[in-house]
Amino acid sequence: MDSFEQLRQDAWAANMELPRLGLVLFTFGNVSVADHKRRVFAIKPSGVPYDQLSPSKIVIVDFEGRTVDGNLRPSSDTLTHAVLYSAWSSVGAIVHTHSTYATAWAQSLRDIPILGTTYADHLTTDIPCAPPMRDELIQGNYERETGYQILECFRDRAMSPQEVEMLLVGSHAPFTWGKDWKKAVYNAAVLEELAHMATLTLQINPNAPRLKESLVSKHFQRKHGSDSYYGQE
Amino acid sequence: MDSFEQLRQDAWAANMELPRLGLVLFTFGNVSVADHKRRVFAIKPSGVPYDQLSPSKIVIVDFEGRTVDGNLRPSSDTLTHAVLYSAWSSVGAIVHTHSTYATAWAQSLRDIPILGTTYADHLTTDIPCAPPMRDELIQGNYERETGYQILECFRDRAMSPQEVEMLLVGSHAPFTWGKDWKKAVYNAAVLEELAHMATLTLQINPNAPRLKESLVSKHFQRKHGSDSYYGQE
Amino acid sequence: MDSFEQLRQDAWAANMELPRLGLVLFTFGNVSVADHKRRVFAIKPSGVPYDQLSPSKIVIVDFEGRTVDGNLRPSSDTLTHAVLYSAWSSVGAIVHTHSTYATAWAQSLRDIPILGTTYADHLTTDIPCAPPMRDELIQGNYERETGYQILECFRDRAMSPQEVEMLLVGSHAPFTWGKDWKKAVYNAAVLEELAHMATLTLQINPNAPRLKESLVSKHFQRKHGSDSYYGQE
Amino acid sequence: MDSFEQLRQDAWAANMELPRLGLVLFTFGNVSVADHKRRVFAIKPSGVPYDQLSPSKIVIVDFEGRTVDGNLRPSSDTLTHAVLYSAWSSVGAIVHTHSTYATAWAQSLRDIPILGTTYADHLTTDIPCAPPMRDELIQGNYERETGYQILECFRDRAMSPQEVEMLLVGSHAPFTWGKDWKKAVYNAAVLEELAHMATLTLQINPNAPRLKESLVSKHFQRKHGSDSYYGQE
Repeated sequence: MDSFEQLRQDAWAANMELPRLGLVLFTFGNVSVADHKRRVFAIKPSGVPYDQLSPSKIVIVDFEGRTVDGNLRPSSDTLTHAVLYSAWSSVGAIVHTHSTYATAWAQSLRDIPILGTTYADHLTTDIPCAPPMRDELIQGNYERETGYQILECFRDRAMSPQEVEMLLVGSHAPFTWGKDWKKAVYNAAVLEELAHMATLTLQINPNAPRLKESLVSKHFQRKHGSDSYYGQE
Repeated sequence: MDSFEQLRQDAWAANMELPRLGLVLFTFGNVSVADHKRRVFAIKPSGVPYDQLSPSKIVIVDFEGRTVDGNLRPSSDTLTHAVLYSAWSSVGAIVHTHSTYATAWAQSLRDIPILGTTYADHLTTDIPCAPPMRDELIQGNYERETGYQILECFRDRAMSPQEVEMLLVGSHAPFTWGKDWKKAVYNAAVLEELAHMATLTLQINPNAPRLKESLVSKHFQRKHGSDSYYGQE
Repeated sequence: MDSFEQLRQDAWAANMELPRLGLVLFTFGNVSVADHKRRVFAIKPSGVPYDQLSPSKIVIVDFEGRTVDGNLRPSSDTLTHAVLYSAWSSVGAIVHTHSTYATAWAQSLRDIPILGTTYADHLTTDIPCAPPMRDELIQGNYERETGYQILECFRDRAMSPQEVEMLLVGSHAPFTWGKDWKKAVYNAAVLEELAHMATLTLQINPNAPRLKESLVSKHFQRKHGSDSYYGQE
Repeated sequence: MDSFEQLRQDAWAANMELPRLGLVLFTFGNVSVADHKRRVFAIKPSGVPYDQLSPSKIVIVDFEGRTVDGNLRPSSDTLTHAVLYSAWSSVGAIVHTHSTYATAWAQSLRDIPILGTTYADHLTTDIPCAPPMRDELIQGNYERETGYQILECFRDRAMSPQEVEMLLVGSHAPFTWGKDWKKAVYNAAVLEELAHMATLTLQINPNAPRLKESLVSKHFQRKHGSDSYYGQE
């Protein structure tokens, strides 16, 4: 029996959600799912079209980015995932896409402002856009540095990966994550929708204000606070 | 026999229309259907994905917002629905979504201007955007206050819920309603289309004028007036 | 045998294309197909949803707008169609929609400029936007006057309905037509695409020039001129 | 046996991808596939709807644009394809569409700036927009001149068709190509996505900078350089 069977199955299921949700063109995205106890994660193989993907093609990689099991080369973004899992023990899955609206915001080098309650249902701040990497880092180990770039952005802003589960890498594209793959994929779709709404809101009213703090707090608490009354749990 | 069977069936059918019409992402929306004689309404359970919804999961709530029948927690917006049904006896169903264009207008804090005959086929005024709630109300019973916020907006503008069946809650999202669930859901899709057209119209011509009064009146009357000649009734 | 069977069948098939091509929401559109010899046309019944439409529900109307055959009330826009058929003997079918982009241009009260060869494959001028009707006409026989408004716009601009098969009625929505229903429906979809492209082009470059005359002429001639070499005929 | 069977089959399969990928309305596009040894290419017949296309309807044309085999008239753009194959021996297939966003950029007469890593995964420069043709050339052999216009644009900018596999013909629409039909069709979809992202990016931030050179180089090299580590080859 394949000891990574469940992990492969989860990573496959998670990756297959990306085209279904309209978040990827061709192979422009990947999902990984981690097992923190064994310090490994399962990730999409590089450049394989989604309609040819199967659980057996998923690659198992350790937190240093070395392939542990699998016949194919892992996603070219593997080292970014590895850095994040090493640093963030609460993160069970990571999604990277080039979804249209979120990528446009990443290219605009702007944070997505928190403009309404749809945002506050998911986070209490603007969605951060990490500044592009310094040239000397790009020429080094680029994908590993992309991971450090994300960690640095969160450190600089004193953000926690449990409270903010999404970010834009400036000039590049979005990353989202969550405690499990369903939440990470959910966040990728939510981010794309929030990016779409922000584009439209600022088109309609370039001076649209950020959501006021009382509403930010109310919506986030009712969904995520200790007295939350959203959902069935 | 379940005495709420028909009400549950209607609420389920109504809720299932939202994803079919492209008006919701994940669980970002809910529909309720009222029985004014019994002073109860049927509403979507909180946080349940549409593809797992069934009539038996629909929750029955009274006009004070107390669960009367059902095993699940009702939508977190239940008290907003309750306040509206209490005040508006002509309203048989209420729809709340975060549909993309209507929500962008809500976030822009602007009324949607009445720009053409497609608008006048449905109402004779701009689509109102209620101003965001005062802080002390947000910290109180937020969802109930959202209902009062809607009622106050209609009172301030001397609007009737029979003549205007849609509104934006500023910084939040749209609500629509109607005499029955088909009309309420229809209005949610129409509002999204009107919001889309308004966004484009003002992009093409920032000085596009409001529809002139003679056309507003003509289109509304031919569809809704006592001499209406639209439809088969 | 129903002597209008073929006409009904054609009008039904034509109407069913509108939702398939994404040109209508609910019942916001209608197609008619004319028999100029008998001076009648077949048109969609008013307010009937497309998924409940069948050939037998199509209404037969004469060129004065009187119902000749059928149990349902014809489209509320019937008199507009009647006026156009009376005046334009070359027109075999007429389509009216509220498709999103074309309607936004109609509401902007602007002609759609001829911006590229995709336009010149279909016409040699800007797509006309007829100015809104004068108030005294709106209060008269509105739908008949809409027909006169279209005829007047073409007369004022010295346009022929054989050369230009589409127009926007200002503050309202588009009309298209053609020698048969396939061409009229084709034109409705082409107009929506041209309106979409124009919206984007002027967003990208507000000073984008009209297509130069040499290219207008070349593209129109290669598709429609006496030496045309497009298609198989 | 039909000696052009495989070529016809490929050209048919390639053409059928265009509607599937949402790149064409009606017949607004065509793909050709070349056999450089025999100096012929297979191309879509002119004006035939995609749902009526079959391999047997594909036309075989030589590099001078003369029909070699087939009963139908080839695409009206055939001579453009012929000129490109004559000049560019590395190009195995050519795609021409009027896809919405790429055509809007062509009409805006602007290069699409290289705004992010999604661009650099495919090319290292802005996507060129060839200036509209001079009038005397339009009145000559228009389609052949369109081919020369493309070649001249690449010569003027010292671009190679192996490094840059896409271009906009100003006032007209996009052309893409590749070593085989799968790559040429892939490029047509990628171009449309890059045009969409550029439209949004400049809407969000009109001063969004071009991607910095270090990132341009890094992303292109990791996918296409001699040490590439993207994909499985």
